[in-house]
Amino acid sequence: MRRLIPTGEAARPVEFADADRPVPEPDEALIRVEAFAPNRGETFLLDRPRPGLLPGKDVAGRVVRQAADGSGPGPGTRVVGHPPLGGWAEYAAVPTHSLAVLPDGVDSVRAAALPLAGITALRLLRAAGSPAGRRLLLTGASGGVGHYVTELAAAAGAELTVVTATPARGERLRALGAAEVVHEVAAADGPFDVVLESTGGPHLATALSKLRPGGLLVWFGQATRTPATLDFFGLLGSPEGVTLRHFHYAGAPYGPDLETLVRLVETGRLHPEIGRVADWSDTAAVLVDLRERRIRGKAVLTTEAAR
Amino acid sequence: MRRLIPTGEAARPVEFADADRPVPEPDEALIRVEAFAPNRGETFLLDRPRPGLLPGKDVAGRVVRQAADGSGPGPGTRVVGHPPLGGWAEYAAVPTHSLAVLPDGVDSVRAAALPLAGITALRLLRAAGSPAGRRLLLTGASGGVGHYVTELAAAAGAELTVVTATPARGERLRALGAAEVVHEVAAADGPFDVVLESTGGPHLATALSKLRPGGLLVWFGQATRTPATLDFFGLLGSPEGVTLRHFHYAGAPYGPDLETLVRLVETGRLHPEIGRVADWSDTAAVLVDLRERRIRGKAVLTTEAAR
Repeated sequence: MRRLIPTGEAARPVEFADADRPVPEPDEALIRVEAFAPNRGETFLLDRPRPGLLPGKDVAGRVVRQAADGSGPGPGTRVVGHPPLGGWAEYAAVPTHSLAVLPDGVDSVRAAALPLAGITALRLLRAAGSPAGRRLLLTGASGGVGHYVTELAAAAGAELTVVTATPARGERLRALGAAEVVHEVAAADGPFDVVLESTGGPHLATALSKLRPGGLLVWFGQATRTPATLDFFGLLGSPEGVTLRHFHYAGAPYGPDLETLVRLVETGRLHPEIGRVADWSDTAAVLVDLRERRIRGKAVLTTEAAR
Repeated sequence: MRRLIPTGEAARPVEFADADRPVPEPDEALIRVEAFAPNRGETFLLDRPRPGLLPGKDVAGRVVRQAADGSGPGPGTRVVGHPPLGGWAEYAAVPTHSLAVLPDGVDSVRAAALPLAGITALRLLRAAGSPAGRRLLLTGASGGVGHYVTELAAAAGAELTVVTATPARGERLRALGAAEVVHEVAAADGPFDVVLESTGGPHLATALSKLRPGGLLVWFGQATRTPATLDFFGLLGSPEGVTLRHFHYAGAPYGPDLETLVRLVETGRLHPEIGRVADWSDTAAVLVDLRERRIRGKAVLTTEAAR
């Protein structure tokens, strides 16, 4: 089979290689991959790829071999999955605890756009507490997570202000339910009950200053790739007793959250924002664009099996 | 009357000046000050004192004039108070909502050691949640707050590890109930349910790494005077979902917390750790020692009225 492997070259970070099909563990199903979606965080791992790195966490396709332990769906079932690695390939082994069955109404492209960003959005909103009637601020909103959070939080009754780099990106977020769109965090009109922050650097302290007293900032990323500096005395000018929670979405099993996401898509409550769909022979160029934030929402690559 | 005013000189940060007695607001009692206690944070304000700064927040003495609005204790009553300013003087005006009556068993020196550090300790422990049966880590433990937190948390059933600069300082904390004494935060044997952190700088990220997943760090000071740098990706190696809460003790009324502290001292449950008692003519030298952390626990200055 063919898979994409890292090259270490910034301008062309992956290339095709021939490989044996993966040998699944007893609790893993073997999937014929029809579509996969790279995440911006994964592109960072390609800067200086560790030896043997097989990227790829978000896949959709069809089971070709059920897990040997009898768990999970049988051959021929359409699924979406979130394996720890190896998804950018014709075949991938996926733990059955991190699979969900796809109904006819959810195609592989939309399904592949769900796992990492969608699970992050669900778990982030759980960390934020009930959104009903609360004022939320979301930074770095134009990526995959941002669109999912916006649609789900607005539907749940939050009054959401989103921060995006450009007005064009804000239009779609407004259509999904954002009440306000601003282009830098300093311009957001607080106070907010909760801030969902993913840019880091100097924006973090600014975002903290937008909270109400006792408010919560959930820190889920550092898109600027710049650490945040927090000055205790500087924060004395911020609202009293604010809390910062460091958040990372990870933690299997992912199956239950994938089932939720699939159901929301099927019932028209969640609309994956897919800024680019391309053949997987174009993956290198798509990764560069994703990294440089030239893609709004998700990028999805399709294999020959999708045709 | 005489009061101490800032000089702006590091080696002799205050000097006596003649002044009129303060004119109380309607809700303020006029107090003849017998003892006052400076706090290390107040010494920082003396670096570049703003014009007209009248330092002094922790006082004990006797009411000479009841508040004009009829609130608070009457003349002759012994009290401890936490005014916003002006306590390093023969007379101070103190809002009656931030006064507590002193019983005979609590002398002015111990009483003056209570307000800022004791209120901070009470409110910090409230922010930390119930300590019973939980593992707590306290950094920068050899100051006034550290001794109060140690005694109260240990009495409430916490298993407390304290960080102090030297073994000598740790002995007293062990006597007050600390289970473990270490001399740098990296040496603390986690994981902890709660970290109470007051040093800042590089210690903050180290302290976060000592939490259990989902644990809470309450950040209540920056004794190193160095901001903390938090790297989102670096924290991915820390326990999952840790929370940092920025804490500052301030918020009147202080009277109820002062009453609690006085009661605890009277009943032998709280023992102010007083590393230095001196005549207020020595205040400048005491402030320098406090700032350079040469005093364990609290420093208290006494006026002529105490004799």
